[in-house]
Amino acid sequence: MANAPKANAVVGQSGGPTAVINASLAGVIEEAVKHSEIENLYGAVHAVQGMVKDEFVDLKGLDAKTLDLLAASPSSALGSSRDKPDEEYCKKIFEVFEKRNVHYFFYIGGNDSANTAHIINSLADKVGYDLRAFHIPKTVDNDLLVTDHCPGYGTAGRFVASACMGDDLDNRALPGIKIDVIMGRHAGFLTAAAGLGRVREDDGPHLIYVPERGFSMEKFCSDIEKVYEKFGRCAVAVSEGICDENGVTWAARIKEDSEKDAHGNIQLSGSGDLADYLAGKVKQAGFAKRVRADTFGYLQRSFAGFQSPTDAAEARACGRRAVEYAMEYESGSVAMKRTGNGANYGVELFRTELANVAEKTKSMPDEFINAEGNDITPAFVEYAAPLIGELPKTVYLANNAKV
Amino acid sequence: MANAPKANAVVGQSGGPTAVINASLAGVIEEAVKHSEIENLYGAVHAVQGMVKDEFVDLKGLDAKTLDLLAASPSSALGSSRDKPDEEYCKKIFEVFEKRNVHYFFYIGGNDSANTAHIINSLADKVGYDLRAFHIPKTVDNDLLVTDHCPGYGTAGRFVASACMGDDLDNRALPGIKIDVIMGRHAGFLTAAAGLGRVREDDGPHLIYVPERGFSMEKFCSDIEKVYEKFGRCAVAVSEGICDENGVTWAARIKEDSEKDAHGNIQLSGSGDLADYLAGKVKQAGFAKRVRADTFGYLQRSFAGFQSPTDAAEARACGRRAVEYAMEYESGSVAMKRTGNGANYGVELFRTELANVAEKTKSMPDEFINAEGNDITPAFVEYAAPLIGELPKTVYLANNAKV
Repeated sequence: MANAPKANAVVGQSGGPTAVINASLAGVIEEAVKHSEIENLYGAVHAVQGMVKDEFVDLKGLDAKTLDLLAASPSSALGSSRDKPDEEYCKKIFEVFEKRNVHYFFYIGGNDSANTAHIINSLADKVGYDLRAFHIPKTVDNDLLVTDHCPGYGTAGRFVASACMGDDLDNRALPGIKIDVIMGRHAGFLTAAAGLGRVREDDGPHLIYVPERGFSMEKFCSDIEKVYEKFGRCAVAVSEGICDENGVTWAARIKEDSEKDAHGNIQLSGSGDLADYLAGKVKQAGFAKRVRADTFGYLQRSFAGFQSPTDAAEARACGRRAVEYAMEYESGSVAMKRTGNGANYGVELFRTELANVAEKTKSMPDEFINAEGNDITPAFVEYAAPLIGELPKTVYLANNAKV
Repeated sequence: MANAPKANAVVGQSGGPTAVINASLAGVIEEAVKHSEIENLYGAVHAVQGMVKDEFVDLKGLDAKTLDLLAASPSSALGSSRDKPDEEYCKKIFEVFEKRNVHYFFYIGGNDSANTAHIINSLADKVGYDLRAFHIPKTVDNDLLVTDHCPGYGTAGRFVASACMGDDLDNRALPGIKIDVIMGRHAGFLTAAAGLGRVREDDGPHLIYVPERGFSMEKFCSDIEKVYEKFGRCAVAVSEGICDENGVTWAARIKEDSEKDAHGNIQLSGSGDLADYLAGKVKQAGFAKRVRADTFGYLQRSFAGFQSPTDAAEARACGRRAVEYAMEYESGSVAMKRTGNGANYGVELFRTELANVAEKTKSMPDEFINAEGNDITPAFVEYAAPLIGELPKTVYLANNAKV
């Protein structure tokens, strides 16, 4: 391995924003300024779009206070993009890199971003250009391979858990059926976090449905009816990605139904339709009067002033570590290995090859989902609780002994 | 006025929960234990339902630590009720009060709760029974008369402002149209809070629609198109209570449309339908590809671990003050008068008659809404900013000078 070149660096943020993706960016910046090998640090405006359009902002000039504010700011401060570059697109990026004497590339994102870094790095290899390409993991879905968990998940999970805690108390006060639809098209980790705030025996959500298990409308309604009979109310968390027994998402099925409608007035392409549809089915079942549904939507990944301290610290450490690795290695993705659980929770960062993370995703392991497919297990709680951090304690009095 | 009787007290929480209604309850409890005139303090389980069913929990035995946790817990810890008692219903309550030697009644809620306290108090007057009936204001809608603002509003407003700050940053990262539907069927105060986090000139929400102004779908779409042309994106806050020029809510109009549908599969009775409908209309207008909508739903009033410090302190003070008033007066509602603004913000509590608060509600004053009816004014920001407390500072870099 050659010595780290004295050259410029590019950093970008890709895909759906999270509440800590800027913490990773702050980590990259604060580490980069320590290394004289990195002359300029260019922030790519709107990710790969800025890289092909040659649109960058300077990042080395930010002071420490701004970096701390940046690290606490939700969303992608450099702007993002949903473009998935193919080899042709990557060639254009590489041309801009050559022109700007960029030999370091840091890309914060999910598995697609790891793939982009991988393609660009391969192009550089072909022509013997020393490009150091590093991926820094980011996703609220927690679905990347190799790493124990992803920066972004802990904060989104903390949001979902806090929302469901409050929502369950609300449902106690005015009892009925409450359905909450949570992000995560393929992996159920974020929906599963709905259960992390449960303390009392009758705390909700009482039922949790993840996309890893087939979702039957009949079982859904009868599950809820059972809980309703027991507690006089039922709080439910459902992933937006739930599929029927044929693997077709319920969201797609509902959309198909709506497109058959001739009136043309009803638009089911927004984000509240699955929740409303499920609420409608439970109402039709007829056993409960008060049925309400919420879709948590973008708040899960973007709420301002709200982070899991663990998640924010890890995201920032991953950013710093990517720059350190770039001084020694040619490419890689930063990953986390868990060194302990509960009070001994901790992680070690390590480097894995880009190819190990590129394109692929993972789902919830079976041990995190109960046998009935309608709840999480203690193994999941052990896994996820340290990531979201300590939750507030709450008091409910109406079940106290009557006087 | 007779001396305060040595007797028992009842406290209840009514209507939609808020994130600080338990702070008011904690205030009642901590003040009640200081007064030997109050022998037992009974918490009415599920509000008036517990009062007619004679279902109460003891509240004098709670320790200081539990009271602090209670004050920080969202929702109504005693359970709530949507029942609106008429005179017959109130007679039954009064019978239970007589049986239990209850001469103090504290009711935390909105204008309906003030009315309930008023009716029960009148019944007591008729038979010469010394009942001290006090209403403690609560509502996220901020629509009660007399008081400058209502406990519950500041925290809900803080949630909405924080959500919209993050959502706007998310919309910057992946530009498009984003519509957020916010609680408040008749008063626009909560929707207006969406604009309190704006700092940069191009910060969203760029458009805010409250129920105090007629909502035209044509103007809505053309307003958005103008912003979209200017900024390449547009974030919008819309009240769930918006009405057409005839005073019919858009939510009702959409429901009517959907009921005409013969397929029976589409349920528009949940809470996401207005947002999806609006997004559909903007998509139809055709000037923007990416249109998304969220409905903030119950999270606005129930998110765990999230309070405006000012709101929480005021809610608790109102609870304490109600008990103090009960030692001196026969009835009343606790209200707040503002003593200063900005850095000099403060309130004085005062007593007003129950009849002044019962049943009636207020709307946003004209000076809080801009001439076009699609935004708030600086006067509103001056009014609401101290109630929600300081918001986090955020950093956005993509608009910095290009290098």
